[in-house]
Amino acid sequence: MPANHHNLRSSVPWLIFFLEAVFIALFSILVSDDGASIPIISYPAFQDVSHMMIFGFGFFLVFLKRYRFSSIGFNLLILVLGVQCSILMEHLITFLLLAAQEGGLTSITRALVSMTAVVISSGAVLGKTNPIQLIVLTVVEIIFFHMNTWLSKIFLQVPDNITMMHVHLFGAYFGLAVSSRFSEPSPRSEKNASTPKSDLLSMLGTLFLWVFWPSFNSVLAVQHKRRAILNTYFGLAVSAVTAFALSVLTTKDGKLRMTHIHSAALAGGVAIGYTAHRIEYPWIAMILGLLASVISILGSFCSQKCLNPTLKIHDASGVHFTFGLPAVLGALAQVLFLVIENWTDLTSLGFLVMLDIGAFCLTITVALITGLVTGVILNFRLMKPTPVSKYFDDQCFWEFPHLAVGF
Amino acid sequence: MPANHHNLRSSVPWLIFFLEAVFIALFSILVSDDGASIPIISYPAFQDVSHMMIFGFGFFLVFLKRYRFSSIGFNLLILVLGVQCSILMEHLITFLLLAAQEGGLTSITRALVSMTAVVISSGAVLGKTNPIQLIVLTVVEIIFFHMNTWLSKIFLQVPDNITMMHVHLFGAYFGLAVSSRFSEPSPRSEKNASTPKSDLLSMLGTLFLWVFWPSFNSVLAVQHKRRAILNTYFGLAVSAVTAFALSVLTTKDGKLRMTHIHSAALAGGVAIGYTAHRIEYPWIAMILGLLASVISILGSFCSQKCLNPTLKIHDASGVHFTFGLPAVLGALAQVLFLVIENWTDLTSLGFLVMLDIGAFCLTITVALITGLVTGVILNFRLMKPTPVSKYFDDQCFWEFPHLAVGF
Amino acid sequence: MPANHHNLRSSVPWLIFFLEAVFIALFSILVSDDGASIPIISYPAFQDVSHMMIFGFGFFLVFLKRYRFSSIGFNLLILVLGVQCSILMEHLITFLLLAAQEGGLTSITRALVSMTAVVISSGAVLGKTNPIQLIVLTVVEIIFFHMNTWLSKIFLQVPDNITMMHVHLFGAYFGLAVSSRFSEPSPRSEKNASTPKSDLLSMLGTLFLWVFWPSFNSVLAVQHKRRAILNTYFGLAVSAVTAFALSVLTTKDGKLRMTHIHSAALAGGVAIGYTAHRIEYPWIAMILGLLASVISILGSFCSQKCLNPTLKIHDASGVHFTFGLPAVLGALAQVLFLVIENWTDLTSLGFLVMLDIGAFCLTITVALITGLVTGVILNFRLMKPTPVSKYFDDQCFWEFPHLAVGF
Repeated sequence: MPANHHNLRSSVPWLIFFLEAVFIALFSILVSDDGASIPIISYPAFQDVSHMMIFGFGFFLVFLKRYRFSSIGFNLLILVLGVQCSILMEHLITFLLLAAQEGGLTSITRALVSMTAVVISSGAVLGKTNPIQLIVLTVVEIIFFHMNTWLSKIFLQVPDNITMMHVHLFGAYFGLAVSSRFSEPSPRSEKNASTPKSDLLSMLGTLFLWVFWPSFNSVLAVQHKRRAILNTYFGLAVSAVTAFALSVLTTKDGKLRMTHIHSAALAGGVAIGYTAHRIEYPWIAMILGLLASVISILGSFCSQKCLNPTLKIHDASGVHFTFGLPAVLGALAQVLFLVIENWTDLTSLGFLVMLDIGAFCLTITVALITGLVTGVILNFRLMKPTPVSKYFDDQCFWEFPHLAVGF
Repeated sequence: MPANHHNLRSSVPWLIFFLEAVFIALFSILVSDDGASIPIISYPAFQDVSHMMIFGFGFFLVFLKRYRFSSIGFNLLILVLGVQCSILMEHLITFLLLAAQEGGLTSITRALVSMTAVVISSGAVLGKTNPIQLIVLTVVEIIFFHMNTWLSKIFLQVPDNITMMHVHLFGAYFGLAVSSRFSEPSPRSEKNASTPKSDLLSMLGTLFLWVFWPSFNSVLAVQHKRRAILNTYFGLAVSAVTAFALSVLTTKDGKLRMTHIHSAALAGGVAIGYTAHRIEYPWIAMILGLLASVISILGSFCSQKCLNPTLKIHDASGVHFTFGLPAVLGALAQVLFLVIENWTDLTSLGFLVMLDIGAFCLTITVALITGLVTGVILNFRLMKPTPVSKYFDDQCFWEFPHLAVGF
Repeated sequence: MPANHHNLRSSVPWLIFFLEAVFIALFSILVSDDGASIPIISYPAFQDVSHMMIFGFGFFLVFLKRYRFSSIGFNLLILVLGVQCSILMEHLITFLLLAAQEGGLTSITRALVSMTAVVISSGAVLGKTNPIQLIVLTVVEIIFFHMNTWLSKIFLQVPDNITMMHVHLFGAYFGLAVSSRFSEPSPRSEKNASTPKSDLLSMLGTLFLWVFWPSFNSVLAVQHKRRAILNTYFGLAVSAVTAFALSVLTTKDGKLRMTHIHSAALAGGVAIGYTAHRIEYPWIAMILGLLASVISILGSFCSQKCLNPTLKIHDASGVHFTFGLPAVLGALAQVLFLVIENWTDLTSLGFLVMLDIGAFCLTITVALITGLVTGVILNFRLMKPTPVSKYFDDQCFWEFPHLAVGF
């Protein structure tokens, strides 16, 4: 069946309609909240997170020169679909546990934060998936992510806002595991490249993410919201400054590389996610931001040289060093702070450290295993995987009437 | 007088200075509010609406490849001019009725919401009007829109936030009526087309509108603001998802069309405007969003095939199916909810339904008639209408020094 | 040492690391605030200002066709570096004066507002500086700006929010003085030009600045915040409308010029900065906005014809007429309002007027002198100044792998 991979009509609409029918039916049963309860999350904070996800991540991923429509369009698709799915999962879990339901806005905000994991994973296979694969990836990953959160909460008693901060970790390693099941693009592929213009649009998304990251890190914090905002801001500031220094040091002829700035400017925000509400002095946040930037740019340097060629994993938008490694750093920093805070009481310290490390290992393990499984599923014949020659190409999925009418 | 159409100097500045002089004089008489009264509308909510109008609609309309400066520039011009005019109209009406004046921020927000009608109408004639025509259109439409609102309020006792939600309906049908008085562009015009790049910038505007639509639908609600936010969000989410499914189904070779995503993603927000504060369960909002997306894409399909060629109306940016049809759906849904809520008391039900349908018919009738009249006025010789060959062209109105210096 | 100017490796990283080490060390000593104190500035207001600085100014400056990466990248660099420096300066001054420290968010907001001066100055030498010069400029200007603020406060008892509004004045004249020490670019330089596309991206930044300017003018006001918002909005609206009229009047063939709209739309916000919280009737704000627009466009007309050729100052992004002249107008308006308010009490009036005019003259004098000194420092051999032939060129500082792989 030649050219079958690019006819979406036989599958995408019916999958979407089926999912929407299921979602609406489940919403009518499970979700009764009409927003009348007392809100915990302010509307502007919710709006910031929504803006960041829809607009910021959408444009952050617009750097491939022939994959711009898909980057921004599919980001919207998986977000709006995934948010509904994530809200249902949360309500299902609270329903099963007979726990109290949360207010409407809180529920959407939590869903949006969870969706970060999916958006990051989709970044790892950017340009290689078709919409069916993306929709399946979204639904499957959201289910696995909520299972992981639920396991951490029930068995390891990790507080809620910490489990939610595992999104970056989960998203990055899930995405890398999925990516390992996809063929590598030809190294001489012309399409797998950015142009100065697409890099600029990607910078537009990056700046949105940068500006709204303090909202992201503070929105689910129950207390010390303002401290979380301040620490995230300082972490981001130092990580952005350091990005410029390190970019010059690691490129061949001592120039700046735009993608370094993209990744490393955000690394500070990711690394500080776990501990933003806890750090008491800005200078600690600043040091963490600096280390995040270092780990991100060195990671980018090493991934390209050693890791990726060895493991045969092609990380399309560098999620490993933008989100994965800084999140690992953040998790380690969290353990370190725990040790410093509780070193007087060694019994409870051991227990707490075990729990934190346990949650961290659990998340990475679940992410890698479920990611591999998902990667295998996505490459079934049924999913009509895109052939390597059609990677990174909008024209498989989008009409280009413009091409007929002029330029 | 050849080439006269593109010299703006003899008319635009004097018209603007005259209007500004009148506005400043009337402001000094009518508007004494200095913002000291207790605010009803929070500053962030106002900011969202302002951002949406100036930035979102500005970029939403930037899809014509040679009309980008005008799309974004004239959108700014008519907005800032129209807001002043609208504030004056409101103050004039409250002054004549001896009613209490509203606080400053509320007043600007109401003016911005009213201006949606003008921006939508200007979208229907995008690329065909010169600045003088746009300025006249703005002033005339705002006056007619406020007259319609005032008639609905006085004679039909429609609550205030419902009359304001007629903006989409009024704007779309007023715009279509105006458009019917303009010549159709040549079907082979190269300029009446988008490029991938301009579609991407238009997506930028669409995402802004999408993200801020919950603010738009809730900002004027007196109660149930949070419910309005949630319902709008769910409506928008489902309408965006459905847009992808329907776009694939209706295009020739089963691909996605960017303009479908633009229109249908917003249709949900428009349709839910009337009832957002009233719907009790999210799944109802979701069904409404789904229907809005369906009606928008089917409408787009039918308009191009049947309606437009028959009625000879050229709808430059698809306002009919993006704003007109979803608003009709929303108005019908409102009547339906009214029937469901009040079916026990048939006497008052009949009365209420009559009022709602009356307000709906009044708005459409006033929009069509005043739109036709405005269309006739705009094509007077005095207005120097743009000849068809100069449609969709920035170079009539903007300097392009760049063209001289290189590319 | 040929081609030495474009190798950043030997200097930029070490300068950045040195500064960050100093900043972190000083933060650990001086800044102990953890954001626990009662906040004066709301998070959304802070967010608006942050967004405006990082995103708005970043894209506002993206109009040179071959200097887009640098415009947006270096804007981020100097902002995040300067904010840290500015917070330290404030804490140092309050530490030396034994005054009470301000809350964390207030402190960052004040730092961001101060950084406007640096961003404006960097606009005056846009395209002519290398990163080392920009970093030195940032640190030196922030120190001088805080010294000036401190002098105004201590010796002239100017209230705090007025001294902060001197940022536009200080930034513009400091920038012009620095610019006078740089060589003029060749008038036939192809690189010193915009393209329609870069003008559009610059419009994107301008609209962001326009929308958030009311937040900027109100964020530091202690009282009458809402009045400041309203007046700024009206001032901006009229100044944007007037920009269209005046642009048509001043260009050669009666068309609109995009750069006029950019400058004049913002001029209203700058001019009204000093008095936004004080004006009682919107029509006064509207007149001020109109005058600001007039002064900005006439200033642009005159600068290019008379001032710049005579004084040999090349003002790369028109900061003189966008920020300098409207700020002078605003300062004069402030004195005028003072006279009107206090004309009954001539003794105290004279004193108050003297203080205001004193602060104004002090700021301009300090800006010009320190700007000249900084300009001289920046052209030391050590700074490796960019040769004129390499002005306005991204390729000196940024990698362009894209150029190798295709277009």
